[in-house]
Order: sequence, then C-alpha cells, then structure tokens
Amino acid sequence: MLRALRSRLPAESLIYLGDTARVPYGTKSEASILRYAAQATDHLVSRGIKMLVVACNTASAVSLDPLRERFAPLPVIGVVEPGADAAVAATRTNHVLVLATESTVSRHAYARAIAARLPDARIDEQACSLFVALAEEGWTHGEVPASVARTYLAPHMKPADGPPADTIVLGCTHFPLLENVIRLAAGPGTTIVDSATTTADAVARRLHEDGLLRSSGSTGSLTLLATDGPGRFASVGARFLGQPIDAGDVEVVDL
Amino acid sequence: MLRALRSRLPAESLIYLGDTARVPYGTKSEASILRYAAQATDHLVSRGIKMLVVACNTASAVSLDPLRERFAPLPVIGVVEPGADAAVAATRTNHVLVLATESTVSRHAYARAIAARLPDARIDEQACSLFVALAEEGWTHGEVPASVARTYLAPHMKPADGPPADTIVLGCTHFPLLENVIRLAAGPGTTIVDSATTTADAVARRLHEDGLLRSSGSTGSLTLLATDGPGRFASVGARFLGQPIDAGDVEVVDL
Repeated sequence: MLRALRSRLPAESLIYLGDTARVPYGTKSEASILRYAAQATDHLVSRGIKMLVVACNTASAVSLDPLRERFAPLPVIGVVEPGADAAVAATRTNHVLVLATESTVSRHAYARAIAARLPDARIDEQACSLFVALAEEGWTHGEVPASVARTYLAPHMKPADGPPADTIVLGCTHFPLLENVIRLAAGPGTTIVDSATTTADAVARRLHEDGLLRSSGSTGSLTLLATDGPGRFASVGARFLGQPIDAGDVEVVDL
Repeated sequence: MLRALRSRLPAESLIYLGDTARVPYGTKSEASILRYAAQATDHLVSRGIKMLVVACNTASAVSLDPLRERFAPLPVIGVVEPGADAAVAATRTNHVLVLATESTVSRHAYARAIAARLPDARIDEQACSLFVALAEEGWTHGEVPASVARTYLAPHMKPADGPPADTIVLGCTHFPLLENVIRLAAGPGTTIVDSATTTADAVARRLHEDGLLRSSGSTGSLTLLATDGPGRFASVGARFLGQPIDAGDVEVVDL
C-alpha cells in the first residue's frame, strides 16, 4: 500500500504508522480494533496529517465510520471499498472469492461492499489467519505456504454447486506477499486483485477534489513510525516495501 | 499449564489472565513484553494473589527478574527453569533441541538454563513462530502443520556434525498442542518434554516452603480473565484446557 501511494503520489509527504506492538489485528475483537485505530489516529492528527488512509483491511472493515465521525472533517479513506471496486471491475462470472482475516470476514465487509456494486454477485469469504503469520515470517514460497493456500482455497475452487470463482480479492495487506502460492492454488484463469492500486487512485481523487493535492514539482518525505521495537519493523517492513529499511530511520511511538 | 496446575493443586484457587488483546508476545520487543508483564502483574496483585506463575515462556525469558524485583516479596515462578529441569532429566546424549518463540530464542533463555545444569550439553535452538498461529487456529493435525514441523526440525534431526538431538523441549505453552506433528517430524527415539508438569511441581514445592499451601480438604476456584473479547478466548482456550469454556465465564479486564 505504501509502495502504491508513493508511486502514485510522489509529491506527497507520507507518515506510515505500524502498530507493531499489537499486531495482528485480524484476530482481535471489534472493541479492541476500534480503540487501537482511534489511538493511532489521535497520534497522526497530532502530527498534522491532512488525510488518513486506513491501510489495513481489518481496521477499515471495523473502524471507518467511527473514525470519520470522530475526526471530521479529516478525510478518511479505507481499503475495502477500493478493493471492492477492483473486484467488480475484474470479474466476468460475478463469482468472487474474498480472502481476508477472521475479523474482516466475520463483519462481511467485502461481501457487503461488493454486493452494493454488483447485486447479483456470488461472494465467497474465507478467513486466512495463517497467511498473516506466513507473510510476517517471510515464508512466502515453497511447500508450507503452498499447502496452506491449497487448504484455504480448495473448497472455493472446486465448489459442489457451480463454477469456481474467477476473481480472488486479497483482502488483507499481508496477502500480496503470498500472491504466487495463492495463484498456484487457484489455478489458471483466475484474476487476483488487491486494493493497493485502487486505493492509491481513490486517495489521489479525493486529494484533488478537496484541493489538497501537492504540486507535482515537489518531492514528498517518508516518515516511519512503529509502536514496538524498530528491528522487527525494519525486517518485516522491507519485505512489504520492496526495499531495505534502516531500523535507525524508524521512530518508536507510544500510543 | 493451567491444566497441570489444577491437576497437581486441586485445593488452590487459580486466576488465569490471558492477554488476548496483545498476543502473540513471541515476536514483540523486550521493552513491550516487560511493560505488558508488569501491567498484568499489577492487576493480579490487586486481586490478592499469593504467588505469580508466569505461564508463558517468552514472558518468563524476558521478565522474570524484573518482576521478582518490582513485586517482592511475591513469589514469582517462571516456566523456563522447570523446562530446563525436564530436559536435563530426559537427555541421554546431552544433545537437546529447544523449540520456542523468536523472543525466547533470541534471549537464549533455555540454552543458558540448560547449560547451567549440564555444562557439556549441546543445545540447538529453533524459533518456531508459525507454531503459535497454527495452535491458535486449531490446525494441529494434517499436512500443513506436519510440513511446518518438518521445515523447522529438519536441520536439527539430520545435523552435518554428529548425532541428532535426543530430547526436544517445547519452549512455548502453545507447542504441546502440536506434539503429534513434532513427534512425527522428529522420528522415533526422541523424547519430547514440556514445562507444564515440572512447573506445577515447582509451584507446589514453593507453596509448601513458604507455608502457603492450602489444606487438601478444600476445593479451589478458577477465575478466567482476558484482555480482549471473551469469544475467541473461550474457543482457543478450550483447546488448551481440554474442556469447554463458556464465554460468559470469562471476565474482560483492561490493563
């Protein structure tokens, strides 16, 4: 997500806050996720942000409306609606499989967002908590992740009633790291979409609408914040960002 | 652990606090683990406990001495030293493999405790973060956990230099749920030990020494506390306790 935002909006200054002390959110209760999201937003607002991107599917599914209400008029963009846009644009058979965390699935956040755009869609949802642990461990290739992916996908790729899903939504920001094994488990002819690009588009559109877009001549800064030790943030984050992160560049904050 | 304590000390009243809002500890920094352990102990002390059992290997490895100092004269028992006792009693070849979390391994907590008891022991340590996610998910049998176990154990069961370990320490309270697949990956002739029984023995001994043991005529109560929603605590906890937990019996506390 950070990578897509930097690439789409190079002139904007970005602050990335990873709540590494309390990850993973995907198996936590709604009340805890709401509290954590509000604490993180409080901190970011104190740093003068002009827009908030909730770049976590679980937090988007649970906390978007409360955050919009509490921090109005701050523009708040989530990743679920842009992800649903991407799914609806990709599907030909109107059968979509959403892979997400336990919390996102139990809220049916994607199913509701996709159904609002494509009322006759068939939407399967699958909680894939182990994908988070695999992505954090860096186990993204080989027998173990392939076997986990097969286990999660099998019921949906060979359903008893009708054709398999033709579009798979990666409904957690960790899952793009596992795209290769998910693609293998899904088989050919399946489109895999994530919300990073469509969210970056939504952010650019909203900045433009609100007159907040920075002139393209300038170069934006990047600030990295974490709530736990910067060492693990740097090693895990580098896999997501696709470039090395120096732990010395990560500022630890207490929410 | 709770099961071993109840079975060994049926007359004692037990309060179990699961910091479900912030699990897993095993990938968190030392500073965060220390803070969480102190907050949990503050709460338990306010409920009048007479002894603290740090029933988490990661928290034991990191926070035992600071907790003993801060909460003196409260007796504080960890699980690493009893686990090392069990390993030393079991090994014949003096080659021990410790499976634990990233934090426990990076502190070499078991290696130091075993070496203190058996100076010429060869001790391999392996971080197994995915075992935590598998145990929490209930994926304890079948292809996926077997494949994860083989991946973690392979380098230690066929070492280039000498015979394999004859004793494996389950250095995380989650790992006994995966004992079957660990045993399969280890092959025959390996002894698997965990610290539950030896910790319960250490607790009984210390209660006796300090004159705190309750008379065996009475029946102890069990209080279950969690820091996040009781639903997941009940479903995950039931797998550990080996009996159903009613979510209505779990009290949510804010640390």
